[in-house]
Amino acid sequence: MADFTFYAPTQIVFGRGGENQIGALVKAQNGKKVLLHYGGGSARRSGLLDRIRASLTAAGIAYTELGGVVPNPRLSLVREGIDLCRREGVDFLLAVGGGSVIDSAKAIGYGVTNEGDVWDFYDRRRQASACLPVGVVLTIAAAGSEMSSSSVITKEEGGIKRGYSSNLCRPRFAVMNPELTMTLPPYQTACGCTDILMHTLERYFTNNGGNMELTDGIAEALLRTVMKNAVILRDDPENYGARAEVMWAGSLSHNGLTGCGNGGDDFSVHALEHELSGMYDVAHGAGLAAVWGSWARYVYRECLPRFEQFAVRVMGVPAGTADTALRGIEALEAFFRSIGMPTSLRELGVEPSEQDLLTLSRKCGVATGGTKGSAKKLHEPDMLAIYRMAL
Amino acid sequence: MADFTFYAPTQIVFGRGGENQIGALVKAQNGKKVLLHYGGGSARRSGLLDRIRASLTAAGIAYTELGGVVPNPRLSLVREGIDLCRREGVDFLLAVGGGSVIDSAKAIGYGVTNEGDVWDFYDRRRQASACLPVGVVLTIAAAGSEMSSSSVITKEEGGIKRGYSSNLCRPRFAVMNPELTMTLPPYQTACGCTDILMHTLERYFTNNGGNMELTDGIAEALLRTVMKNAVILRDDPENYGARAEVMWAGSLSHNGLTGCGNGGDDFSVHALEHELSGMYDVAHGAGLAAVWGSWARYVYRECLPRFEQFAVRVMGVPAGTADTALRGIEALEAFFRSIGMPTSLRELGVEPSEQDLLTLSRKCGVATGGTKGSAKKLHEPDMLAIYRMAL
Repeated sequence: MADFTFYAPTQIVFGRGGENQIGALVKAQNGKKVLLHYGGGSARRSGLLDRIRASLTAAGIAYTELGGVVPNPRLSLVREGIDLCRREGVDFLLAVGGGSVIDSAKAIGYGVTNEGDVWDFYDRRRQASACLPVGVVLTIAAAGSEMSSSSVITKEEGGIKRGYSSNLCRPRFAVMNPELTMTLPPYQTACGCTDILMHTLERYFTNNGGNMELTDGIAEALLRTVMKNAVILRDDPENYGARAEVMWAGSLSHNGLTGCGNGGDDFSVHALEHELSGMYDVAHGAGLAAVWGSWARYVYRECLPRFEQFAVRVMGVPAGTADTALRGIEALEAFFRSIGMPTSLRELGVEPSEQDLLTLSRKCGVATGGTKGSAKKLHEPDMLAIYRMAL
Repeated sequence: MADFTFYAPTQIVFGRGGENQIGALVKAQNGKKVLLHYGGGSARRSGLLDRIRASLTAAGIAYTELGGVVPNPRLSLVREGIDLCRREGVDFLLAVGGGSVIDSAKAIGYGVTNEGDVWDFYDRRRQASACLPVGVVLTIAAAGSEMSSSSVITKEEGGIKRGYSSNLCRPRFAVMNPELTMTLPPYQTACGCTDILMHTLERYFTNNGGNMELTDGIAEALLRTVMKNAVILRDDPENYGARAEVMWAGSLSHNGLTGCGNGGDDFSVHALEHELSGMYDVAHGAGLAAVWGSWARYVYRECLPRFEQFAVRVMGVPAGTADTALRGIEALEAFFRSIGMPTSLRELGVEPSEQDLLTLSRKCGVATGGTKGSAKKLHEPDMLAIYRMAL
């Protein structure tokens, strides 16, 4: 087991009706003026925003609002949020939504508390020294941003999608009511399950952890649980138990737990996908599924024991089978197809030209500082090869 | 899955040499005057205390010291620590040791920041409103106090052992270097593994959680990992990997993770054991092993599906076997014996008279407010019956 640090301070309030505790939760964090940050119309239509407003008002907490966050959240709205918070003296950010809204709130939090351009942090020019406190009412199980240190923002000019990670932005609390995720369309639910799986897979396929038993056991239990319940939700979207399992898995999959002792995460598939959704604005989870199989086939020989263990313990491939690792990869791709996820760029609805492939891999090279990965260290030519395999 | 809250804000620094970061860690918490709190001679003899003092001094942090914490830590030393901290203006408590030292530090933290008698909190008379910040250098993998909300103190008069739980005392950081646990005697190592197992078992055998998949998967992985590595450590005490697995399991087993969604923990075995170690000053882990089998046989029919699941998934009893649950109980008892743990009071070295049994169960009744348990609700006559079965 390699050395590690673990820090996941978010207070989780899990279960039905948790959103009605929002006023008390913000008050416990000494929030006096809240920015209520959200996306499109569903939180409004469902009455969720009204319940949250009522809870804040009942607790005597003032708030202002900024809606309109879109998937692959935009830097322009972040800048608008920073101006608004400064103007209104906001001291607490309440994100109501999924990863995009939370990530947008985190970026606003950095922008309000640090001088200069907030994009600098995402562009790896400097480190943030503070962040406004963030709270969450989660409505999409996917990104794990409700417990994570990461935030991913897209700069519209050039379609540049960049992540920035720091413990400063880990949310103070997350209200997680599985019922709030029941109205998600099946495609988005499947995208969410894929993202959740990937956050653990990116930590699982590494070469520097040595023997890991507890971490592997947790990771494998999480992967099996998410796959099983993704299929249940495909057929029965309002199954509370399945929504709850997937929602909790989403948080644990990206709070660091499933990587403890792995000697460093891989996260190549995320890097490859970020360029796809930055350029084509596809759903993040679908983009991950579309490239994972190609990535896996490209790298598995250099991380063979881990791929074999995955095949046997997670995908149920009999131990000692010929091509165990490949059969595990095929089994996960078959799972993706079974929940309606693409396993190629064509199935994703994207058909990049040869020039586009070069652009994608060049941008991926820049975004990763030239190299990415632990299962196999990828350089720009490797990235290009994987994009090409994924066509 | 039942509703739950989860909050485990402790920053974990896991791996070799972590104790040399102590100065920086305390500084990051704004600690200016530290109480270095520890037990007997091993931390001194090994040079650990010297390394910690050097790290504090290098960071410019002043400290005072209070050693002498014993297993089943005493209220009298807590009171001494409270006086010392007030006199010296201590603002940060650094516990160097295992659960006893950490629990003692937590109690001192309550005492310094609250008016009145600190025992009131343990005696369920009132709630604490604050606690001095606590940091940990862990040297025994067992109690999980380095990430937990709990603290257990023994009042010498009457041998009264009581726990008090509050999020206020959760440590700010825990330095976890598995090498520091390598010199523990085999009996203490086995006691620690038993305590770790028990913290998850007490959360696992419940009747109010409904279907739990992720939590069960994590719990079962943890139990299997600890049992496997306890046997490795019996034969090879300096096995770093096994020490690391057990140490990390100790924290995750008692930070709340393995009970998420269980509808309320059981913790009857802990309640039964607290009276034993309160009265006879036996090692906590050994006391737990001595009563667990009797407790399990007394309650399993009222929590049968969980005991059957445990037998199959954790102890490897073939599914569908006659008496699956009982065979699982027997298998865990056999495991306890294999690592030198007692499975009866006699093996624990305790032979209570009939009058002692009545005293034990009456004290257990008082300490639990009359009833305890989720697998089966125990009242005083049940407690007496279990003590008697355990003879």
